[in-house]
Amino acid sequence: MNKYWSPLVNKLTPYVPGEQPKLDKLVKLNTNENPYGPSPKVLEAIKEVTADSLRLYPDPNSDRLKQTIANYYNLEANQVFVGNGSDEVLAIVFQALFKHDDEQRPLLFPDISYSFYPVYCGLYDIHYTAIELDELFQIKVKSYLRPNSGIIFANPNAPTGILLSLEDIAELLEANTESVVVIDEAYIDFGGETAVALVNQFPNLLIVQTLSKSRSLAGLRVGLALGNAELIEALERVKNSFNSYPLDRLAQAGAIAAFEDVEYFNETCQTIIEDRESLVAALEQLQFRVLPSAANFVFARHTKLDAELLATKLRNRGIIVRYFNKARINQFLRITVGTLEQNQQLIDGIIEIMQETE
Amino acid sequence: MNKYWSPLVNKLTPYVPGEQPKLDKLVKLNTNENPYGPSPKVLEAIKEVTADSLRLYPDPNSDRLKQTIANYYNLEANQVFVGNGSDEVLAIVFQALFKHDDEQRPLLFPDISYSFYPVYCGLYDIHYTAIELDELFQIKVKSYLRPNSGIIFANPNAPTGILLSLEDIAELLEANTESVVVIDEAYIDFGGETAVALVNQFPNLLIVQTLSKSRSLAGLRVGLALGNAELIEALERVKNSFNSYPLDRLAQAGAIAAFEDVEYFNETCQTIIEDRESLVAALEQLQFRVLPSAANFVFARHTKLDAELLATKLRNRGIIVRYFNKARINQFLRITVGTLEQNQQLIDGIIEIMQETE
Repeated sequence: MNKYWSPLVNKLTPYVPGEQPKLDKLVKLNTNENPYGPSPKVLEAIKEVTADSLRLYPDPNSDRLKQTIANYYNLEANQVFVGNGSDEVLAIVFQALFKHDDEQRPLLFPDISYSFYPVYCGLYDIHYTAIELDELFQIKVKSYLRPNSGIIFANPNAPTGILLSLEDIAELLEANTESVVVIDEAYIDFGGETAVALVNQFPNLLIVQTLSKSRSLAGLRVGLALGNAELIEALERVKNSFNSYPLDRLAQAGAIAAFEDVEYFNETCQTIIEDRESLVAALEQLQFRVLPSAANFVFARHTKLDAELLATKLRNRGIIVRYFNKARINQFLRITVGTLEQNQQLIDGIIEIMQETE
Repeated sequence: MNKYWSPLVNKLTPYVPGEQPKLDKLVKLNTNENPYGPSPKVLEAIKEVTADSLRLYPDPNSDRLKQTIANYYNLEANQVFVGNGSDEVLAIVFQALFKHDDEQRPLLFPDISYSFYPVYCGLYDIHYTAIELDELFQIKVKSYLRPNSGIIFANPNAPTGILLSLEDIAELLEANTESVVVIDEAYIDFGGETAVALVNQFPNLLIVQTLSKSRSLAGLRVGLALGNAELIEALERVKNSFNSYPLDRLAQAGAIAAFEDVEYFNETCQTIIEDRESLVAALEQLQFRVLPSAANFVFARHTKLDAELLATKLRNRGIIVRYFNKARINQFLRITVGTLEQNQQLIDGIIEIMQETE
């Protein structure tokens, strides 16, 4: 506590991201990065940016990037918003669309989902209710049909990896017309179907995506939102009251190249999907129960070994996975699908640990 | 108005940045970019970032960059905060240090200063009072000695370019112990003296800087704050409740290189200071009154020609300067110090316009 701090600061519980270790040679399967790296065209585009252009402000509206994304999804450019990673996009969404000061109508999101959602609620003083996933860790649309000032969930959900169908999403949108439904599609390209096709049908649908996962650009910080032009306008107003230039010139150039290289994108996503299926099979052989995943990670519990102990023992072998010390999921590990070699190192490590503890 | 918007959105008056024209070959003297470009070492550092590193999240805390800046200013790393341009840093400052919900103690800033300040107040619902600059457009410390929940001004001030002395700043800090004083030093390296030397003396001093001007990296979006570790902690808490990774890998690498190349920095700043003095002399010869500038721009009014008309006529010649249609300064133009050639093109354009209108 410091007398100079705004009262808000004392109440905050900041988000804690997964560890970004500064050691090399770790098998890093803890933050769902893509093992294959971005399209080579991204690096070419970045290297074309000159010193003479870096001295100039970037396009504050990222018009070329928005048009590229609009073309990709068959939308108009004014249906696209971009920001400094999907975390910034989400923060702006919470401020622009979810802050309604009505305690009778809380924001709704799953009790198990992206753990940044309650943090944003703290930052913007948004009243929320966490809705329980069912016993299979699935989102049940019916449990969201209640007074609310907004609904948000990840699809596929994180850290479960479980996908909600487009039919279920359409059912929710039809029943919930008075507030915005935000679908956080960070992992949609690994086997799910984006809800973009519903954007022109539902004025209250907003989709958030990131280039950090399927386009392998976690290091570049680019996220986006897709929706009705009026929802996008609300985001632009907040953004332009906060930071005119959230995307630097290198990020804009790289993101455009990433969206343009469709072939590389499709190939790498397909490879990760196939490798995920092999990883799931191998884990199941080692007595894990694995939730059905449509993401680039799996959420798995061992039938005998304690999850936290297992995570620690893997860490001692230089293999990092994500453990959440949280009710209902504290016996699960979230494991990123790595390269075939990394996945094998993980499996070998688990086998060793199982032998040790027998 | 849209039923899905948060009530806040309707009240916002977003900031309007200076034009970023998409045409080439303009003489662009409207947004105070640096004509010389960043150190060549910045581009080298950016080109060393590999595809394999771009797939990974950046360091969320930008530790190496903070240490580099701390070394440069002889501070500790926990006295340094970094963000996605100084606009993001300022936004976080307003939220973390200025939002005190006490109408009897408004935030204070000059009536003529960076026009983003009142925009942030709108975004975070902060009560403020604009304090008049004196008749010579100077900040008078005495006029800030009144109940307040914070004080912020640019030094040198923008768009005037006028510098406040370190003695005046120390006097203000000594008299104003109950709230934070933020000095926005975007232009300090062009002839002013940074208040960094006062940081260890005053726990309520926060300095904000940018790499967009003196380090010629407007296209890279890096800003910073320097101050007491407890003030920095407040900024970190808000930042980590908003966006874990505001600086991408390229921005971190480029910013480190920019701070390390002291020689290039000193040379280019000195050149701009010299070119500013030549530009001022030339403008005075053409019947301008020029406010004393310690920035990389000048704020000047012609004794005969209307400022808005002059700006329009220059624009027609491909020369862009900044005009503010605002009380007290609507007969001034803010003109960036360009290359010698650009400055000459400006002077030639003004001479032509003067001949036309005689």
